[in-house]
Amino acid sequence: MKMLINVPETVVADALRGLAAAHPELAVDVENRVVVRRDAPVAGQVGLVSGGGSGHEPLHGGFVGPGMLSAACPGEVFTSPVPDQMLRAAAAVDSGAGVLFIVKNYTGDVLNFDMAAEMAEDEGIQVAKVLVNDDVAVTDSLYTAGRRGTGATLFVEKIAGAAAAEGMPLERVEAIARQVNEASRSFGIALSACSTPAKGSPTFDLPPGELELGIGIHGEPGRERRAMMTSGEIAEAAVEAVVEDLQPRNPVLVLVNGMGATPLLELYGFNAEVHRVLAQRGVPVARVLVGNYVTSLDMAGASLTLCQVDEELLRLYDAPVKTPGLRWGV
Amino acid sequence: MKMLINVPETVVADALRGLAAAHPELAVDVENRVVVRRDAPVAGQVGLVSGGGSGHEPLHGGFVGPGMLSAACPGEVFTSPVPDQMLRAAAAVDSGAGVLFIVKNYTGDVLNFDMAAEMAEDEGIQVAKVLVNDDVAVTDSLYTAGRRGTGATLFVEKIAGAAAAEGMPLERVEAIARQVNEASRSFGIALSACSTPAKGSPTFDLPPGELELGIGIHGEPGRERRAMMTSGEIAEAAVEAVVEDLQPRNPVLVLVNGMGATPLLELYGFNAEVHRVLAQRGVPVARVLVGNYVTSLDMAGASLTLCQVDEELLRLYDAPVKTPGLRWGV
Repeated sequence: MKMLINVPETVVADALRGLAAAHPELAVDVENRVVVRRDAPVAGQVGLVSGGGSGHEPLHGGFVGPGMLSAACPGEVFTSPVPDQMLRAAAAVDSGAGVLFIVKNYTGDVLNFDMAAEMAEDEGIQVAKVLVNDDVAVTDSLYTAGRRGTGATLFVEKIAGAAAAEGMPLERVEAIARQVNEASRSFGIALSACSTPAKGSPTFDLPPGELELGIGIHGEPGRERRAMMTSGEIAEAAVEAVVEDLQPRNPVLVLVNGMGATPLLELYGFNAEVHRVLAQRGVPVARVLVGNYVTSLDMAGASLTLCQVDEELLRLYDAPVKTPGLRWGV
Repeated sequence: MKMLINVPETVVADALRGLAAAHPELAVDVENRVVVRRDAPVAGQVGLVSGGGSGHEPLHGGFVGPGMLSAACPGEVFTSPVPDQMLRAAAAVDSGAGVLFIVKNYTGDVLNFDMAAEMAEDEGIQVAKVLVNDDVAVTDSLYTAGRRGTGATLFVEKIAGAAAAEGMPLERVEAIARQVNEASRSFGIALSACSTPAKGSPTFDLPPGELELGIGIHGEPGRERRAMMTSGEIAEAAVEAVVEDLQPRNPVLVLVNGMGATPLLELYGFNAEVHRVLAQRGVPVARVLVGNYVTSLDMAGASLTLCQVDEELLRLYDAPVKTPGLRWGV
C-alpha cells in the first residue's frame, strides 16, 4: 500500500509538525507529543485532556481548542500514548480547577491514563476520568475489555468541552461527560481494511464482495462478514444495532462518520438512508454531522453514532467551538 | 471496488437527499439538482453560482452558504451539469444585483455555463463568468482545452463570496474572482486511481510502486509516472511546479488538499514538508488549510494550491463563512 509519508518511524512526528504549521493557535510539542491550546490554562476552567493512538484524525489533536479539548496526547499509530504525555498535558492545562481525562476504552489507554492520573494527583492536580465505551458491536475484543470507545468520543469531547468553557466545576463536567457517553451508541462497517505505516499492507483480509459489520476503529473484528449490501441495507443494520441497544426516547444527535477512504458523496448518500430508517422507527433527529471525524487510516466504510440529548446537552452541543476539526459559532 | 451506495444510477440523488437531511439551512432540489442558500436571494448582494461534475465533494454543494456560494449545480459523477440547472440556480439567487458563474475549465462545464449565461440574460438576469484554470501540470488534457480548474476553485469561491457578502457590485466581484484565479496555481499527485460508481473499478491503472505527478481531479493523466517517492520528495516536486509558474512575491494561502482516500495523518505530514520547502524558497505563508476539499472520489493522493494575496484578498479570505465544508467567524 502506497502512502504519502517519509518513513514509518516519523509519521506521527511529521504530522505534528504539519499540524503546528497549519494551526498557530495550537502549541504543539513535537518531541513530547502533546498538543495544547496556546492560551491554556484558562483561568477558572476545567482542563479537558484526551488522547489515544494516532490514525484516527482529526480525533484527538484536531479537536483541541476553545469549546472542546484543552490538550491531546497522540500515541504511535494505533498505540496508546504513555503516561508522561498525559501528565505533561494535565500540567499544561490545569488552572487549579482540575482536569478531566477522556479515555476511549482500550486496555492500553485505560492503564496509562490511570497511571497518569495518579502521577498528576501526586503533583497536586485534581483529576477525574470518564471512559468512552459506545460501540455496541462486540464486547471484549482484541484491544478491549468491555465495549470499545469510538464515535461517541466526539460528542463527549464537544459537550464536556462546552461545559468546561461555561466554567462548570470538575464534578459537573465529569457528570456531563458520563451522561453523554451513557446516552451514546455506535456501530461501524468496513468495506476494506486499513494499512498501518509500520505494516505497509492491509491489517486484515476482506475479500471482494464482502463487508464486515461491527468493525472497530483499528480493524478489529466485528460481528460478522456478509456479502456486500446496499447503502440502505447497511443503514438498516446500523440503525437497528444502535437503536435496539440505546432505546432512545429523546431526540438524537446523529454522527455519520467516514472511516477515512469513503468519499463524502457516499457518506451523504448513507446519511439519507440512515434518516429514512430513523424516521421509520420514529426516532426524532436534533442535529446531524456527516464527515470524517473518527477515522481508521485509509479504511473504507462508515460508522453511525447516535446520542440522545436533553435540553442542556443540546445547548452545550450547539455552543461555540473552534478547533481544526470542528468549528462553529465563532 | 466496493462502495457505500445503493445503485450507481441514484448516487447523486441519494447524496443530495443526505445533504438536505444534514443541512436544513440549504434548500436542496433533489429532482432538479440545485443546492441553494435557503435565504436566497439576498437583497443587494451578487449571487454566486458554481457547479460541475459530482465526485469532488465538498466542492461545490458543500460550499453553499453565507460568505461563499449562493447556489451549486451538481452534475452526474465527473459529468458537467446541464444549462437548465444553472439557469434555475441563477434565477433562485439573483436579487437584481446580478450573478457570477464560477466555472472550472473543463470543456463541458464551459459550454454549458456559456449557454446558461445566454439563457439567463434572455430572462433579464445580468451574468458574469470567471474561469478557474489553476492546474500547472498539463495543458489541453483529456477534458480540457488549456489548463484544468482544480484547488483554486475553493479560494475563488471563498474570496469572491466574501466580496459579494460585502455588497460589492457584480463587476467588482468578477474582477476579484479573476484576480484570485490569476494569483493561484495547483499541482496534484496520485498514489492510486479512483473508481466511479458507474464503472465500479479503477479508472486507470497505476502499478504498485509508482505514483503519478500532475494528476487531474478526474484521473486524467498527469505529467509523468515515477517510482514511489517520499512525502518530502513529493513536496519538493509540487512546490517547485507551482512556485516556478506562479513566481509569488506576496504571502500565499496554502491549500494542502486530500484527493479523498489519503488519511489526514498523512496530509498533515505532507503539509510539514510543503512548509519546509516553501521556507527554503523564501515564500512567506499567510494562511493554511489542510483537508479534503476538492476531491476525486476515492483517489489516494494530494494536491497543493498556492494563492498569493494582497491585503484585500487576505481580508476577504478571513471574512466569516458558514457552509457545510468551510466554516469560520460565525
